[in-house]
Amino acid sequence: RRFAEKFVRYGKAFLFQYETPRVVTMRSRRIGLTYRIVQLALFVYLIGYVFIYSKSYQRFDYADGSVVSKVRGILQGSDQTNRTQIWDSNDFVVPAQESNAFFVATNIVFTKNQYQGNCPEDKHVGSRKVQCRKDSDCEKGSLVLYGNGIRTGRCVLSTSTCEVHTWCPKEMGKAPRVPTLSGYDSVSVLVKNHVVFRKFGVKRRNILDNFSENYLTTCRYHPQNDRLCPVFALRDLVTFAGESLEEMAVKGGIIGFNIDWDCDLDYGEENCLPHYSFRRLDNRGDKVASGWNFRHAFYYYDFDGFNRRDLVKYWGIRFVFLVSGRAGMFYPVNFILHVGSSVGLFSCASVICEFILAIAYRSDMLATAKFVNLEKLKKSRRSSSINFGET
Amino acid sequence: RRFAEKFVRYGKAFLFQYETPRVVTMRSRRIGLTYRIVQLALFVYLIGYVFIYSKSYQRFDYADGSVVSKVRGILQGSDQTNRTQIWDSNDFVVPAQESNAFFVATNIVFTKNQYQGNCPEDKHVGSRKVQCRKDSDCEKGSLVLYGNGIRTGRCVLSTSTCEVHTWCPKEMGKAPRVPTLSGYDSVSVLVKNHVVFRKFGVKRRNILDNFSENYLTTCRYHPQNDRLCPVFALRDLVTFAGESLEEMAVKGGIIGFNIDWDCDLDYGEENCLPHYSFRRLDNRGDKVASGWNFRHAFYYYDFDGFNRRDLVKYWGIRFVFLVSGRAGMFYPVNFILHVGSSVGLFSCASVICEFILAIAYRSDMLATAKFVNLEKLKKSRRSSSINFGET
Amino acid sequence: RRFAEKFVRYGKAFLFQYETPRVVTMRSRRIGLTYRIVQLALFVYLIGYVFIYSKSYQRFDYADGSVVSKVRGILQGSDQTNRTQIWDSNDFVVPAQESNAFFVATNIVFTKNQYQGNCPEDKHVGSRKVQCRKDSDCEKGSLVLYGNGIRTGRCVLSTSTCEVHTWCPKEMGKAPRVPTLSGYDSVSVLVKNHVVFRKFGVKRRNILDNFSENYLTTCRYHPQNDRLCPVFALRDLVTFAGESLEEMAVKGGIIGFNIDWDCDLDYGEENCLPHYSFRRLDNRGDKVASGWNFRHAFYYYDFDGFNRRDLVKYWGIRFVFLVSGRAGMFYPVNFILHVGSSVGLFSCASVICEFILAIAYRSDMLATAKFVNLEKLKKSRRSSSINFGET
Repeated sequence: RRFAEKFVRYGKAFLFQYETPRVVTMRSRRIGLTYRIVQLALFVYLIGYVFIYSKSYQRFDYADGSVVSKVRGILQGSDQTNRTQIWDSNDFVVPAQESNAFFVATNIVFTKNQYQGNCPEDKHVGSRKVQCRKDSDCEKGSLVLYGNGIRTGRCVLSTSTCEVHTWCPKEMGKAPRVPTLSGYDSVSVLVKNHVVFRKFGVKRRNILDNFSENYLTTCRYHPQNDRLCPVFALRDLVTFAGESLEEMAVKGGIIGFNIDWDCDLDYGEENCLPHYSFRRLDNRGDKVASGWNFRHAFYYYDFDGFNRRDLVKYWGIRFVFLVSGRAGMFYPVNFILHVGSSVGLFSCASVICEFILAIAYRSDMLATAKFVNLEKLKKSRRSSSINFGET
Repeated sequence: RRFAEKFVRYGKAFLFQYETPRVVTMRSRRIGLTYRIVQLALFVYLIGYVFIYSKSYQRFDYADGSVVSKVRGILQGSDQTNRTQIWDSNDFVVPAQESNAFFVATNIVFTKNQYQGNCPEDKHVGSRKVQCRKDSDCEKGSLVLYGNGIRTGRCVLSTSTCEVHTWCPKEMGKAPRVPTLSGYDSVSVLVKNHVVFRKFGVKRRNILDNFSENYLTTCRYHPQNDRLCPVFALRDLVTFAGESLEEMAVKGGIIGFNIDWDCDLDYGEENCLPHYSFRRLDNRGDKVASGWNFRHAFYYYDFDGFNRRDLVKYWGIRFVFLVSGRAGMFYPVNFILHVGSSVGLFSCASVICEFILAIAYRSDMLATAKFVNLEKLKKSRRSSSINFGET
Repeated sequence: RRFAEKFVRYGKAFLFQYETPRVVTMRSRRIGLTYRIVQLALFVYLIGYVFIYSKSYQRFDYADGSVVSKVRGILQGSDQTNRTQIWDSNDFVVPAQESNAFFVATNIVFTKNQYQGNCPEDKHVGSRKVQCRKDSDCEKGSLVLYGNGIRTGRCVLSTSTCEVHTWCPKEMGKAPRVPTLSGYDSVSVLVKNHVVFRKFGVKRRNILDNFSENYLTTCRYHPQNDRLCPVFALRDLVTFAGESLEEMAVKGGIIGFNIDWDCDLDYGEENCLPHYSFRRLDNRGDKVASGWNFRHAFYYYDFDGFNRRDLVKYWGIRFVFLVSGRAGMFYPVNFILHVGSSVGLFSCASVICEFILAIAYRSDMLATAKFVNLEKLKKSRRSSSINFGET
């Protein structure tokens, strides 16, 4: 029973008693002002940066999404393209459907009607431009680095290169100086981007519900005049990325097509809108391996049933969609967390001022008022038994 | 030597002395209870939210991974599809191999045997439905917005539209009301997802080692009955996303195929399992540019060596894989960090109570006990030289 | 006016007064040392881990980027491949252009000249290997799970399976034990990776400006000897991932091609370099659904205008690029934030020591010096009116 009583007494003390530190108040412009200025700075920082700028009272979700695009337009091919005179988007967008990217061909080398046979090696192949004078220079069955085929053992005197077994005839190497496709101004792309913020159950798309069909067929994106139009002219895309379309059309290149969703859902879903920006990813001035090209082979059989292929080398502009989405919404847990830890930060002001005090204000008076030395206290008690009050 | 002595004395004081604040204890239900309740709330919050819910004692890694898929099934084409009657997955999955996505065609318009020539423009082209009455209405060499080719300068009276040079004949515009491909119930997809948590050196795949070949050929994913089966029926995917397959088959659409790995590696790798969910990314009710379609051209030569193409317009359902993986594992550094900053947070309780005290408990007695005014102290000392003890 | 005076007085007090806590100093090795050791540990942790290791004085940005690759080399096909004897990269890289991935075919099954017709079902189809004895076993128009076509109602006695309407002839099922393509040592891949750190406006690419064309054509990546060469031999890629190329070539597989940019921009942009690593994503030992393969159909018309296709099943190695980029740069806001919260953490030392003090040092002397009981103080004041000084 005694234990229970004790327990209750301690419990009461624990619950109903409060300890407040005893302090020395002192007049000091230097420390007083320092204290308040540090506190003010922390306060401004916390309200201004942590709460208003960083919106730390919100929780965030990052977007999942997909981008699909539809390119429209007509290009005209010069004679070198061989295939056709009119190229519609089904011809110049290769491959037809790509995830988060699309490619517009601007310059073409068409190698028609290749078959498997023997033909002289390309002079400009690989690192060592191997040439031959007689058949014994060309080891049969061997393969040179970056060579186009397997050597037959013959030396072709007309080109002074070894004969190889491969797809013949060879492709002509270099990009035409004047792009083989022209008329880029008719090319535009419709971009459909869907994002989902799963934590908040919010779904947004860049084609808003209040866009009419008429608007979608006539509008063109412009960063100032029409920031939400999802139709982009090819020339604009290149220009906004700070490049010249005519220059890029020759050797190709890669442009990042950024779609940013930075949404504050506390202000309503309908204000959650995309922001487009463009940036060339490769460098114009690259001395080696500059631009962007790739090849595609189209296979068919000739009348005798032999395998043939048309090899097309495409230079062009590859657009890569880079979608980044962040949405924030008020979240009480985060609000409390940041209020709490902000209050904690305020103790820094005391720490700094105590430090100044310890360095700069060494006065006996302050020491007497501030410190009690337990050891001296014991001694003085032992020597005299004067009750000096509950101090 | 004196300096050394002094240094040692200060060092001893620094190391072996401790300062504890002097406090006033007071009985007050209001402040005492407030203090303890704030502390309790912080304690519950820290243990409950920070440690148990947020697992802040762990460090996390996010998954790198890849998804590949294999669609199987047989669809039947109606007469309009022209190409064939039986479509296997090699025919209706376009393109054959795609990163993190796959497309199932459901509705087709097949435009066979196009050649480059002259034919009348489509009536429904572009924004302004330009029609003509006489040849002079059609400027030779011009190109209208979203037009299909370059004008030849002739007006075709039968259609009242200008003649254009392009791929002929033209494609018929609209999606068939009844999808041209049917028999979707035979279509299923096997999904292979591999994720790597590089920080922990843990590799997981959604096809578990204890799955037998028999299980893999017979099982079907179901969110309750078979949550781990990596084989999904096409109809189920659409149904779980809250849509109707027959409705989506007409104009197409995009479905997000989420694979989430939320793993607590402290409970063992084998409990690190995928969670599948599905969500339509575009909106069913979109008035403009709704659904999903694209075109693909197949090129060939006719008997006279001229270039021809078959143009196929595919409507269908595009599935986009969205993999998100997070794995957590106990990490001592994080544990200590969070224990430490939690302790720091507790000072909030004092700050709040000191504030209440300052506002509500203005008693002389408390002030006398709590505060020593250094200036008054100096004055009183100067006036009397009574030694009032080392207080 | 009195209010104004009061306000000024309080304002002065607020600004120019400072409160410093009164403390009891006591000599105690245990507590003194504990206090300093905890402080030291916190100090070491803060300087070592938070500042030096975690670089918390920086702010970070994560890379946006794209990877494109160009595969070069010549493979030789065995007779089974049917198509051709020499395969260049346009033949064995399928599809020609892929975002963030590329695929090298190593093993092929070529099913030439398929047409839509009737042929017996494959014996090894689906889960239940359905065989037939008479026509009535094969229900007309039905479809079995994973079957290849729609049943015609006939039973083909020679194979004892039902006849189906589909693409005929059927593909031969299994992967050749010896890969049909050989000569992998000539295959190499040039990787072009561009990353942008948008926050800092920094653009980096893996092909450095000081690489000469000669270097790019002759170099080969090696983790020790040539860490920056962007040209990778196929065999090396597989070897560095810890696998055998000859083994993987049979059934295929998926390899993650990691490109990591971990940049400290405080040390200059030119030290921001890529780090390559490789890891097989699927498991070699998978008993079911192991490896990686897919099919591609090539369509054409025969002389009578009927639709035909060549079906190619490719086994091979799929490389998936996983780019992760993080760049840090000094940021004053973060620096101040972390200094501040670090100072806050130091209060932990006091909390721990106060706790030890409360538990282990229960002496009357300390209690007398440390605590003032407000209630007792009131009582003693009431009983006597001795002024015991401004304590």
